This record gives sequence, structure tokens and C-alpha cells, in this order.
Amino acid sequence: MNIEFLKAHGTENDFVVIVDPEDSLSLSEAQVAALCDRRAGIGGDGLLRVVERDGRWFMDYRNADGSIAEMCGNGVRVFAHVLVAEGLVTEREFDVDTRAGLKHIEVLEADSFGARVRVGMGSVEVTGVSTARMGSFAFAGLGVDVGNPHLAAVVPGLSAEELSSMRFEQPAFDHDFFPDGVNVEVLTELAEGQVHMRVWERGVGETRSCGTGTVAAARAALADAGIENGTVTVNVPGGAIEVELADGEALMTGPSRIVARGTVTLPV
Amino acid sequence: MNIEFLKAHGTENDFVVIVDPEDSLSLSEAQVAALCDRRAGIGGDGLLRVVERDGRWFMDYRNADGSIAEMCGNGVRVFAHVLVAEGLVTEREFDVDTRAGLKHIEVLEADSFGARVRVGMGSVEVTGVSTARMGSFAFAGLGVDVGNPHLAAVVPGLSAEELSSMRFEQPAFDHDFFPDGVNVEVLTELAEGQVHMRVWERGVGETRSCGTGTVAAARAALADAGIENGTVTVNVPGGAIEVELADGEALMTGPSRIVARGTVTLPV
Repeated sequence: MNIEFLKAHGTENDFVVIVDPEDSLSLSEAQVAALCDRRAGIGGDGLLRVVERDGRWFMDYRNADGSIAEMCGNGVRVFAHVLVAEGLVTEREFDVDTRAGLKHIEVLEADSFGARVRVGMGSVEVTGVSTARMGSFAFAGLGVDVGNPHLAAVVPGLSAEELSSMRFEQPAFDHDFFPDGVNVEVLTELAEGQVHMRVWERGVGETRSCGTGTVAAARAALADAGIENGTVTVNVPGGAIEVELADGEALMTGPSRIVARGTVTLPV
Repeated sequence: MNIEFLKAHGTENDFVVIVDPEDSLSLSEAQVAALCDRRAGIGGDGLLRVVERDGRWFMDYRNADGSIAEMCGNGVRVFAHVLVAEGLVTEREFDVDTRAGLKHIEVLEADSFGARVRVGMGSVEVTGVSTARMGSFAFAGLGVDVGNPHLAAVVPGLSAEELSSMRFEQPAFDHDFFPDGVNVEVLTELAEGQVHMRVWERGVGETRSCGTGTVAAARAALADAGIENGTVTVNVPGGAIEVELADGEALMTGPSRIVARGTVTLPV
């Protein structure tokens, strides 16, 4: 059985996208894993299935191993872009349903290839201060809950070049503070509205971008600068994302790119 | 500019394939690298451009970084499969021109998705005996020239399970013996016509398969068993390849899979 797919990415967090408005495809874990396999399949960090349910667009997001995932900040921008690029919605403001609830979307620009999308990421809660270590490099950061747990560490005096060349590895963290594990962001101090960040994703390793991680980083950078509300451009290895924080709520604005469109044989 | 592509693999050594019989596409290093980028592009270990030159099919093979490469054993099977699957050749035996010379091809089976292809890999020359080390694991092997340099090491008593779980890392080798570097294969002894092999490719790292590496491994396994001519099934992490050695010449038979077909915007 042949199905149509798109390959797309948001700040180089990449996805196999399957448009299935009728919700007719039930993909097994093995099928998702085969489609996301980078050498034997199409390849992706995850799979986004575009489904219409109860009159709403639902993001059926799956990890590359086929397991079910709740939400993905970069994925939801790509999802919204695909809806507009494929002509499934004509509005530029709409809601997308996810396993983590409704997300409000604003598509600022979009054509068949590129888009710029703003996503309401919901509430951002500081849970305290904690420390972590990568090899011999010890640091302190802010615990931030963006629906998932983060430790966002502003390192005083760290330059973008030093960040880029530092040895990034599995962090040792406080398991009492983060009983379910934690995503760790290391970032530069806020300067001219910008920070540079690298992220170690829980259960994955270093990635080129993490949507909720940029929100946590923005929260920590503003706190470090003694600012409560504001806008931060967070530079990640895969691009740049703008995060606006106001009264404990976050808006995330960033790019989406549709790289290819084609047909693939659904693995059995 | 949109162009058509296929994504295909031979024992999970994967390629972006562009069918360009008129030889009209001149791809820069940056364009090839962008197409082969696994997150921002389609993704592949390399790019195969299918070109007709002087009445012959020419395999324009490029590494994932855009640099020009001479030959790729897994790639030439995929190349031949695409020629047949796309209806560009109707014969099942033909020659493919590569930067390393003409390769004789026999397509044993082929449909739109899968194929089994035999390739004349040319002469295989034993260059001597050398040693190498991966961490604390030291081993001796046969230097084998298959157009590129290999050190193929049969490890006495090694089981397939032990091979699969061993720590595989950058090998330390004899730079006087291999002045241009070397591809290193570690393999089990020949048993019932089969060996299991892992490969560390020069300049790349561990890969799921290496066509010339399976030829070198077969040569070493036969030599270790005191046999000059014969057939060996070489099991690699990405599948299995059959190598037939006769009078210093090698035939390699293995699979090809076309995973997806589509269109991609050519990066500028």
C-alpha cells in the first residue's frame, strides 16, 4: 500500500508528515519506526499524522520509535504549516488539538515550502533552582515546567563560541528534584534580546532544537536579567526561535520548512 | 526549482537518487550536502545521479558532504535497480560506468520496490598481514585491496552475539602499512558459508554496511579457512551480501530497496 508523505522540519527537528483527514490510517509502532528509520525508511525525529476529529485538527504525534508522544513545539508549527500549505485550512488563526490540549496557532507567513508560525505554549512555571553536571562542568539552573520538566542554566560569561565547542554529554542531575528525568538547556546570558542555547533532551540526547526547551531557556534568561515579561530570541543549532513571555504564559514563534513531498510504501 | 528524487538503500547504506539522463543538473557541493542532510534535507549517506554519457550509464556518486567519490558497492546495486525500475534499461545484464571504471551488472530480480543485483567488483588483492586495535581489543587481519584499502580481521572464536555487543570505535592501525588510512572489518570465522561482520569506514565511522568491505571480509574468511575460491554470505548490521571469489575476482550479490519517490526543492 502506497501512501503520500511530506518531509518537513522546524529548526531542524524533522518529521515524516502524513495527511490523513479521515483518520483512516492506524499505524503500528513498527510502521512508525520503519518510516522514521533514517537509513531504511524516510527518516525523522518523529511522525505527525494530520487528522480531523470532532471538527478539530488533531496532531497525532509519534516518537521515532513508534511510541505515543503528547506534544512537540517544533512539530506543532510544522503541523500548522502543512494545514495551510495543503489547503486544509484557509484561516490564519485556528486551534490545533494535541494530547496536551488545545494550542492556539497564528500562521504569520506561509507558502508551499516555508512558513513562520506562532504557537500559544500555555503556562510556564518556575519550580525552583537545581544543579547539574556534564563531565567536569558543573552548573546551576532554573527548574522550569512547560508541560514537561526542564533545567535551564544561564552560564555567566559563557560566549556563543564557547557554548558551541563545549563537550556536551549526558548530564548528572538531582533525581529528587526531577523524579521523571529532565531536559537540560545550557545557555548564554541575555544580550540584546538574544541567547544561544544547546539542549540535551531526556531519553534522546543532544538535538538541534527543542521547542519547550527554548521556552524554558527564555524564562531562565529573563529571570537571570531580572525581567519578568519580555521577548527573547533563542538561537539553537538548528535555527532561531522567538519566545514571548507575559504573565506566566508563553508564545513561541519560529519557522517551518516542507522539504519534500512523495509517496512511500507503507511497511507491513 | 523542483526536481524528482528517489530514496533508496542497499543493506541500509542509503542514497538520494536523482535520475538525470540528459546530464543537465550540475550540483554544487553545498547542494548535495543540503539534500543529504538528514534533518534539514532528505537524508542519505550519499547521492547517486543517474546520467547517460557516451551511450553508457554513468554513476555520478557523491558523498554526503558533497565531495566526489569513486565507487560504492552498495550504491551500484541501487543504481542498477533504479535503471530497471524506472524503465531506463530493459536488459538484465549491462555495464555501468563509474569513476573507478566499468562495472558489469546482472539484475537477478527487480520490481518497483525491491531488487537483487550482482555486481562484478573486479580484482581483489591481498597486500599482507597487519594488526590494529580498538580500545583494549587488539587483533590481526589481512590487508585487502578492493580498489580501496581494507584490514579484514577474522577473530578466532568470536560469536555473532559477542561481535554485535562489542565496543566498536576508531581503530588504531599501522600508518606505514596503510598510508592512506584503512577501512576495518571485524568478523567471525567462516561457518556454514557465513560470516558476521562489522565495519569501521575510513573517514565515516561505523556504518551498517560497506560493499567493498564485504568483499574484503569474504577474502579474509576464505583465507582463514584455507580456501582460495568460494562463496561467502557476509551478514552486516544492515542485511546480508553474498560474495563469490574466483581466481582473484569478486562478484557481489545483494539487495536494493526503493523506499520513496517524490519531489524536492533544489537548494540554492
